[in-house]
Amino acid sequence: MNSNLPIGIFDSGVGGLTVYRALHERLPSEHFVYLGDTARVPYGTKSLSTVERYAIENAKFLEAHGIKLLVVACNTASALALPAIRDAVGVRVNGVIDPGARAATSIAAGRKIGIIATEATVQSGAYANAIARINPLIEVIERACPLFVPLAEEGWAETEVARAVAEQYLADLRSKDIGAVVLGCTHYPIWRDLIGEIIGTEVPLIDSGDAAAREVQTLLESSDVASAKPERDMRERQLCDDLDHFYVTDAAERFAKVAERFLGTAPSVLEAVEVWGHDELRTY
Amino acid sequence: MNSNLPIGIFDSGVGGLTVYRALHERLPSEHFVYLGDTARVPYGTKSLSTVERYAIENAKFLEAHGIKLLVVACNTASALALPAIRDAVGVRVNGVIDPGARAATSIAAGRKIGIIATEATVQSGAYANAIARINPLIEVIERACPLFVPLAEEGWAETEVARAVAEQYLADLRSKDIGAVVLGCTHYPIWRDLIGEIIGTEVPLIDSGDAAAREVQTLLESSDVASAKPERDMRERQLCDDLDHFYVTDAAERFAKVAERFLGTAPSVLEAVEVWGHDELRTY
Repeated sequence: MNSNLPIGIFDSGVGGLTVYRALHERLPSEHFVYLGDTARVPYGTKSLSTVERYAIENAKFLEAHGIKLLVVACNTASALALPAIRDAVGVRVNGVIDPGARAATSIAAGRKIGIIATEATVQSGAYANAIARINPLIEVIERACPLFVPLAEEGWAETEVARAVAEQYLADLRSKDIGAVVLGCTHYPIWRDLIGEIIGTEVPLIDSGDAAAREVQTLLESSDVASAKPERDMRERQLCDDLDHFYVTDAAERFAKVAERFLGTAPSVLEAVEVWGHDELRTY
Repeated sequence: MNSNLPIGIFDSGVGGLTVYRALHERLPSEHFVYLGDTARVPYGTKSLSTVERYAIENAKFLEAHGIKLLVVACNTASALALPAIRDAVGVRVNGVIDPGARAATSIAAGRKIGIIATEATVQSGAYANAIARINPLIEVIERACPLFVPLAEEGWAETEVARAVAEQYLADLRSKDIGAVVLGCTHYPIWRDLIGEIIGTEVPLIDSGDAAAREVQTLLESSDVASAKPERDMRERQLCDDLDHFYVTDAAERFAKVAERFLGTAPSVLEAVEVWGHDELRTY
């Protein structure tokens, strides 16, 4: 593995930028290549076989680009397709489900854990299974919150409408004596304050993307693949500067607009690409 | 053209079922084949070139299946991709934009026309252009209502949340002296009552899908391609019975569930298919 290669990140769309931000903050010496599959977003209402197919195409595109490690930022793809992705590419693949489950289990200390995620992630049972592997006695309560994604993408996350939607999804978690709630979709960190108000600010909220970034940091520190030679003074590194390359499968302009809403800045290097049907990309 | 062939209908997903219902009611002697591109839904936030590509693949799939006429139920695909679809297939293609524009212009009698639609449809200017071709003096007011689709698909169209969202999008249309509002997305007929309450029940709401179905009815009556030999007594025809075949590109189970919410019944014949990368389908 070439330590100077970038870390690859893919997501179904723009939500994975919250994971990019977490990685960027923890690993200022690294550079990143991000792929948002905006031509086929969202994944959270689609089936296992379709999510697997899309995820493999994304992973192969990034592997062909040249990366030293692949982070699957999308919770739905991590929940449904991690084994298929690992079969399809040679590079190491890290998802967000196991890190989120580990962080929640550690902080919940035996109490119930709440999972909020997309329809597909909840139906997969991936978080419940991951928690059960760590501690089979912990009770897990899962809630699909499908409207959080479109509301966040429209910039409505801080409106009265958003509050009413969140109340509807989450009000009954308030009384359940919960030790931690996992934000099991990359869009949900944007909802952190509102979720805290509804389920109680004393309940720790686990950002799976941040938990995944922490594990990637540990992995790099304990191995020899951390970037040794930053190309410029990394103290000057900015989010979305030209060391980080962003690809989307559609609608780059819309991606840039939503990225600005999520990160406060838009990518310097952003390109629309096709990731499907390119057999030459598979013969790297 | 073989008059006993079915009429093809495609949509980005489940919303086109409102167009299927309108066609079914008006044309009880016809049978239908419906394709919902649920693997790539929604189209309304995607770019021109991507919507064109998806629409052509859908059209070719239905043409290869054998149809006498193709109805593009999806407003976004009609707005962005109709010329590309017509270039790609040999069968006659009817969209929903021109019928909606004609119905609105006729009923608005020179007053302003409101258009509510997806982001992509509004950005394309397709409705405004179609109305200008009929009467360039009519003022058109367009509003993108992107949250209507996910709210309808979640079955939240009659909630307080839906009312708050609709107020936000539409309240300022109330005072604009509007002669008609076009429901420019297949999901919006479900919002009819709520939209009427907000903009005023005296404003006529034009369902583009229904307008398109009316034009298809006229077309068939004035030609020799109407179905001559119904396969069974058509008085017994039911929505979604086994004379009509439904295909989806993903997640048939979810489609059936949402179909039940939209039509009160689920398809008898429903199959998941792939419409991309099958070159043999292009050599019919």
